[in-house]
Amino acid sequence: MSDLVEEFDAYRSKMNDRILNDNNKIIKRIFNLDTNAFAAGALDVKTKELLGLVASTVLRCDDCVKYHLKSCKESGLTSEEVIEALSIATLVGGTIVIPHLRRAYEFWDALQEKTE
Amino acid sequence: MSDLVEEFDAYRSKMNDRILNDNNKIIKRIFNLDTNAFAAGALDVKTKELLGLVASTVLRCDDCVKYHLKSCKESGLTSEEVIEALSIATLVGGTIVIPHLRRAYEFWDALQEKTE
Amino acid sequence: MSDLVEEFDAYRSKMNDRILNDNNKIIKRIFNLDTNAFAAGALDVKTKELLGLVASTVLRCDDCVKYHLKSCKESGLTSEEVIEALSIATLVGGTIVIPHLRRAYEFWDALQEKTE
Amino acid sequence: MSDLVEEFDAYRSKMNDRILNDNNKIIKRIFNLDTNAFAAGALDVKTKELLGLVASTVLRCDDCVKYHLKSCKESGLTSEEVIEALSIATLVGGTIVIPHLRRAYEFWDALQEKTE
Amino acid sequence: MSDLVEEFDAYRSKMNDRILNDNNKIIKRIFNLDTNAFAAGALDVKTKELLGLVASTVLRCDDCVKYHLKSCKESGLTSEEVIEALSIATLVGGTIVIPHLRRAYEFWDALQEKTE
Amino acid sequence: MSDLVEEFDAYRSKMNDRILNDNNKIIKRIFNLDTNAFAAGALDVKTKELLGLVASTVLRCDDCVKYHLKSCKESGLTSEEVIEALSIATLVGGTIVIPHLRRAYEFWDALQEKTE
Repeated sequence: MSDLVEEFDAYRSKMNDRILNDNNKIIKRIFNLDTNAFAAGALDVKTKELLGLVASTVLRCDDCVKYHLKSCKESGLTSEEVIEALSIATLVGGTIVIPHLRRAYEFWDALQEKTE
Repeated sequence: MSDLVEEFDAYRSKMNDRILNDNNKIIKRIFNLDTNAFAAGALDVKTKELLGLVASTVLRCDDCVKYHLKSCKESGLTSEEVIEALSIATLVGGTIVIPHLRRAYEFWDALQEKTE
Repeated sequence: MSDLVEEFDAYRSKMNDRILNDNNKIIKRIFNLDTNAFAAGALDVKTKELLGLVASTVLRCDDCVKYHLKSCKESGLTSEEVIEALSIATLVGGTIVIPHLRRAYEFWDALQEKTE
Repeated sequence: MSDLVEEFDAYRSKMNDRILNDNNKIIKRIFNLDTNAFAAGALDVKTKELLGLVASTVLRCDDCVKYHLKSCKESGLTSEEVIEALSIATLVGGTIVIPHLRRAYEFWDALQEKTE
Repeated sequence: MSDLVEEFDAYRSKMNDRILNDNNKIIKRIFNLDTNAFAAGALDVKTKELLGLVASTVLRCDDCVKYHLKSCKESGLTSEEVIEALSIATLVGGTIVIPHLRRAYEFWDALQEKTE
Repeated sequence: MSDLVEEFDAYRSKMNDRILNDNNKIIKRIFNLDTNAFAAGALDVKTKELLGLVASTVLRCDDCVKYHLKSCKESGLTSEEVIEALSIATLVGGTIVIPHLRRAYEFWDALQEKTE
C-alpha cells in the first residue's frame, strides 16, 4: 500500500521540477511563499501543518491533503491529532468531504506502513 | 461496464469500515446523521435522494454523485427524473459541471446494465 | 420584516431589466434557460423548486436562496418541506452553511408574514 | 467600532434561537456537533479554534470567520497567532480571500477595542 | 450612484493600510505579487484584467469583481468587452453567478457615471 | 505522453454523444451556448480561450482545463501566454490550485509533443 506514497511523491517532484524550470516569476514566488508560510513563527510547525491539512480538506483537494498528511507525519503529529483535525474539517465542510476523508485515511495508513 | 459500480462499492465499504472502526465521535455522528437525513419525513425518499444528487453535482463531488445515483436507482426513480435533476444542477452550477455530468451518465448506465 | 422581501424583489427586477436590455445573447439565453428548467416535466414544479433551493444553499448564494424560497412559497410547499430540504443542504454542505441558514429562515419568515 | 461585535452577536443569537426552536432533528444535531467538535481532545481548544478559523477563511464565509475570531479571542490566542493563521489561509485560498481578510482584521480590531 | 465606487475605494484603502502596517511577511508578499501579476508581460494589461475579472466572477467574490471592473475601466476596456467576459463567467460558473452579475452591472454603471 | 490527449478526447467524445443523444433540452442548450460563447465577438477567440482556461483553473476542474488548453493550442496561443494566464489563476485561486497546475503543465506538454 505504501506505493501510494511513492507514486504521489514521484509525480509531484517531477512536475514541480518541470514547473520551476519554466521560470515564471509569479509561480516561483508562490512556491517560495509556500515554504516560508509553514516554517515556525508565532505558531509552531505542528499547528501550521494541521492548518494546512484542514484548509486542504475543506477545499477538497486530495493531492494537497496527501502533501499535508506527509508533513504532519514528518513533524511528529499523532494519528489522534490528525484525525481530530480531519473531523473538524468534515463538520465544517459537510458530508461532501467524506470521499476525501476516505482517501485521507488510506494515505495516512500507507504513511504508517512505510515507517514501521 | 458494471465493474464501475462494484469497484465503487468495494472501496467505499472498505474505507467506511476503516473510518468507523477508528471511533472518532464527531465523524461517527456525521455518518449517522447522513443515514437519518435521507429517511422519509415531510419529504419522501425519492425527493430527498434527488436533493442529495443535485447537492453533490453542483459541489462537483464524483463519488457523492455515484452514491446518490445508486440510491436514486434503488428508490425507483426513472432515468427521466434523474436526468432532469442533473439538468438543473448543470444550469445552476454551470458548464464546469459538464465533466461530472459525463461521469454521472456513465455510472447511471452501468447501474442499468447491472440490473437488467 | 416583510420589507426584506420587497427590497429583494425591487433590486432584482431593476437589475434584471438592466441586464436583459443590454442584449448580450449568451446572458439572455441563460436567463431563458432558467425559466424553462424549472417548469414541470418528468419532475413536478415543487420538486424542482426544492432542487433549486438545495443547490443554492450548498453553493451558499443568499440571493439565490431567497429567490427559490419565494418560488417554493408560491408553488405551495410547506414550512416542514422547505426546512427538511434545508437540513439536507446543511448536512451535505457543512456548518459553513449555517450563516446562510439563518438568513434563509429570516427570509422564509418574512414571506409568511407577507401573506398572512 | 465594537458595534460590529454586538450586531453580529445579536443577530446570530436571535436566529439561532429561531432555528433551534423549530426542532428539525438534523439541524439540531449539527448545531450540537459543532459544540462538541471544538472542545479539548487530542488537540487543545486554541489549536481547534485556529483550525475553525482557517477552514472558515478559505471557504470565504465572513460570519463563520467572525464567530471563530471571537472564540480565538476568548481562548486567549494572541494577534500574532491569529494573523499567522490568516496568512496561511490567504496563501492556500489565494487573493480571492483578501476581501475577507479585510473584514477579518476589522472585526479582530473591534474585538480588541471591546475588551480594552 | 457613484457613491458605490467611493465607498468601495475608501474601505479598501483603509483596510489595506491596516493590513500592510501589520507587517506579516506572507501577506505583504501576496499583496506584492498581486501587483506584479497584472503588469504587462506575454499578455497585455487589458487581457490580464479580463482574466482577473472572470476569475473573480466565477469564484463569486463581489469585492474582487468591483476591483477588477475598476481596473478594466482604467485600462480602457469597453463595455462590450467587459460584458462579453462576464457572459463567459456566467456560462462557466452557472446561474449561481447571476446575483453577482447584477452587482457587477450596477458597479460598472457607477464607474461610467463617475467619469462622464 | 500524447496518449493523455487521445484518452481525454476519446472519453469526452463518447460521453458527449451519449449525453446529446439523450435529448434533454436544457442540457443540449447549455452545450450549444458553450460553442457560441467562445466564438469571436467584441473579444477575439484567443482572449476568450484564456478566459475559459482561467475560469476552469480557479474552479479546479482538470477536464475543463484540459479542454481549454487544447483550444488554446488550436487558436495559436504560445506557451508564454498560456503559462502567464495560469500564473494569474494560481495567484487568485491560491496554492490549492498547484496540483491542477501540475496536471495542466503535463497536458500542455503532451499537446506540444503531439504536434511536433
